[in-house]
Amino acid sequence: MKTDNSPARGTRDLLPASVAVRDHVLESITAVYRRFGYQRIETPALEDIARLQGGQGGENEKLIFQVLRRGLADEIAADTPVRDLVDLGLRFDLTVPLTRFYGNNQAQLPSPFRSLQVGPVWRAERPQKGRYRQFYQCDIDLIGEPSVLAEAELIEATSQALAAVGLEGTTVRLSDRRFLAALAEAAGLPAQSWDGFFIVLDKLDKIGWDGVRNELEGLGLPSTSIAVAVDTISALQGLEPAKIGDALADAVPTMGAAAIEDLATTTACLDRLAVDQPLSWQFDPTLVRGMGYYTGQIFELSHPGSRSSVAGGGRYDKLIGRSLDRDVPACGFSIGFERIVDLLERSARRDAVALLVESDVPTIEILATARGLRGEGLAIETIRRSGKFGAQLTRLESAGFTAFIHLRNDSGVVTRGEVRALGAADSTGRS
Amino acid sequence: MKTDNSPARGTRDLLPASVAVRDHVLESITAVYRRFGYQRIETPALEDIARLQGGQGGENEKLIFQVLRRGLADEIAADTPVRDLVDLGLRFDLTVPLTRFYGNNQAQLPSPFRSLQVGPVWRAERPQKGRYRQFYQCDIDLIGEPSVLAEAELIEATSQALAAVGLEGTTVRLSDRRFLAALAEAAGLPAQSWDGFFIVLDKLDKIGWDGVRNELEGLGLPSTSIAVAVDTISALQGLEPAKIGDALADAVPTMGAAAIEDLATTTACLDRLAVDQPLSWQFDPTLVRGMGYYTGQIFELSHPGSRSSVAGGGRYDKLIGRSLDRDVPACGFSIGFERIVDLLERSARRDAVALLVESDVPTIEILATARGLRGEGLAIETIRRSGKFGAQLTRLESAGFTAFIHLRNDSGVVTRGEVRALGAADSTGRS
Repeated sequence: MKTDNSPARGTRDLLPASVAVRDHVLESITAVYRRFGYQRIETPALEDIARLQGGQGGENEKLIFQVLRRGLADEIAADTPVRDLVDLGLRFDLTVPLTRFYGNNQAQLPSPFRSLQVGPVWRAERPQKGRYRQFYQCDIDLIGEPSVLAEAELIEATSQALAAVGLEGTTVRLSDRRFLAALAEAAGLPAQSWDGFFIVLDKLDKIGWDGVRNELEGLGLPSTSIAVAVDTISALQGLEPAKIGDALADAVPTMGAAAIEDLATTTACLDRLAVDQPLSWQFDPTLVRGMGYYTGQIFELSHPGSRSSVAGGGRYDKLIGRSLDRDVPACGFSIGFERIVDLLERSARRDAVALLVESDVPTIEILATARGLRGEGLAIETIRRSGKFGAQLTRLESAGFTAFIHLRNDSGVVTRGEVRALGAADSTGRS
Repeated sequence: MKTDNSPARGTRDLLPASVAVRDHVLESITAVYRRFGYQRIETPALEDIARLQGGQGGENEKLIFQVLRRGLADEIAADTPVRDLVDLGLRFDLTVPLTRFYGNNQAQLPSPFRSLQVGPVWRAERPQKGRYRQFYQCDIDLIGEPSVLAEAELIEATSQALAAVGLEGTTVRLSDRRFLAALAEAAGLPAQSWDGFFIVLDKLDKIGWDGVRNELEGLGLPSTSIAVAVDTISALQGLEPAKIGDALADAVPTMGAAAIEDLATTTACLDRLAVDQPLSWQFDPTLVRGMGYYTGQIFELSHPGSRSSVAGGGRYDKLIGRSLDRDVPACGFSIGFERIVDLLERSARRDAVALLVESDVPTIEILATARGLRGEGLAIETIRRSGKFGAQLTRLESAGFTAFIHLRNDSGVVTRGEVRALGAADSTGRS
């Protein structure tokens, strides 16, 4: 009986060529971060459901795959609340697990702790093209460094990681949550409206200034405040680095000297970095970042090939400490792993030579020949000769092989051909 | 408030030193298999629950983490069967997903297809020391090769993979399900008792011959049959390779010429392989392997450091084809990933140099210095000087650093010390 072999709705199988691209991205990123002292950790896919629903995940908490308790009766009693049936869930991000991990293992971790996480997360989103219910995230976090040394290092390392993957031409956009707070204050917006104001501002890329104004008015915000906010932001766009500090002190006086000094330090570091490597960056007063837990500088990396950012992060000094008795400074960067994989070209090319074996060659000779060739440093895949020689070579070529070796039995003498390039190969196949 | 930060029951966090060992195992194994033409694939963690409960998983099907359907009412109606509440489950092995994967993607896969899978699986087992509810499996499968070329290649590649990981001194044990069937027949055991007979025989390692005899009698099997089976097995243990074929033809006449010829070929290949590399192997008539789907040769790799085998596999020609309209020959080897990681020594040693930074060094200078050192090929982790110098060096050493560099501000001049080895370092720290 022929059965449906599709993967579960919204998920996908990854074929060898896809996995090869993903491994390349992973290995390149890991190698760069390792040079900065970041070490990989791993947490379980399953977390206690109460932790996942603790409020840190925002809208993502509605998308949790929940796991049924074990040992339930075969039939459920009447009016059992669903929450009584589940005890675990699949993680929807790597930040909730990191917070728990740090709390659980801090005694064994160095300070500062540089963490690199790469792994799958799960969200029960409505399936759509290019969006999957299981996808990888890649998070880098520096826990325990209170100064913007963390921000500057994370931006430098991440720019280099993306360059190592093959994504050149990224641009850094930088802002600070403390600037946004001061902006809202300077505009005379009531404090309870700030979150709504930030959420609308975050949509500027998609809806433009007119859209932002309309949505802010829709929230019932005073039009004078809106005008002040928009004018202030406009005045702060495209400034020369050296002028940002003074401009901020004028425009948003409640921002505070420390926050302005931090911005001056980070921008000076980026300016200096740009001397040593290609780097484009800008202060972007419209940058918001979605999550509510940021407390200081925020940043994104964009790439001309992608409409949305390819990496984003910021400082979150109040999150890690929630599960401890004290605040722990922390700053992180999350790379859009799937987005980057999508930006890279796929090549079927494989670093392997096909050993094409006629059916009358004894198994023991096939293995010994392959072993000898591997001893010479070749990756050898043994494949039986079948069908027309030329057609088989074409199949090998489209499977990504770049060369083949023909092994045959000449009246009892096993004869090995030379390494022959595919594509350029003689399709008669005589070797 | 201090909260409980433990991972979910039966799961664990993996700290950097553990992940480093696991990455080493994974990279070493992958590199070897790649030389044989195996390519990594990936399937989703979630599969449709009906597929997971399809009977292929034996006892493991009782240990599935089941996932609640999305969009259920907040309260469950009376007498709702549990099975109506779930639609997905976490995979408990990599074989069920491979079968589905091959069925789903065969048109895009080469033939033969050499697959390498490494990834987590989940089983809701009672938590116990050294056993976790999430653990990694590593499966290698050759799909589409009907001859024992597959068996011999898998054994060769897997021996080399384990040697590359650092596990020398493995022994291969080899048998054939067709031998076991012929043995049961020769002993006059009724066909319906064969599975029970094999299950008991599989326990020989643990319960010894007396235990096997007792349990077989407990199954109600005729004592004459038991005696014949035990005698036949004993007579076939420790044979010289050249004599195995004749001994089998005598002892278990229904085994058939093809199966005996296959065994002769595999053993000849192993004999020849043993000329080129250290290899110990034996025909083991007591080998059974747990899963019911094997159809031909079966094999295990054992290591003196582990009581149970470190890898096992065999031919399963009837499984892949179940979801298609035809049989597809297949042979696989599964490496006990967690067991191998446990056998390896952990070293905290890291290939990174600590850049120890005094608090009065400007951030921009810290980053530029670290960048320059990374440009010289060093992995540099920036760490702030704190507390007593000697005590901090001791902490760095136990965190695995082998060297450090001191960066300080001498009256406005940033001064970089030399690379100093840790352990041998001057604990006054003047550089």
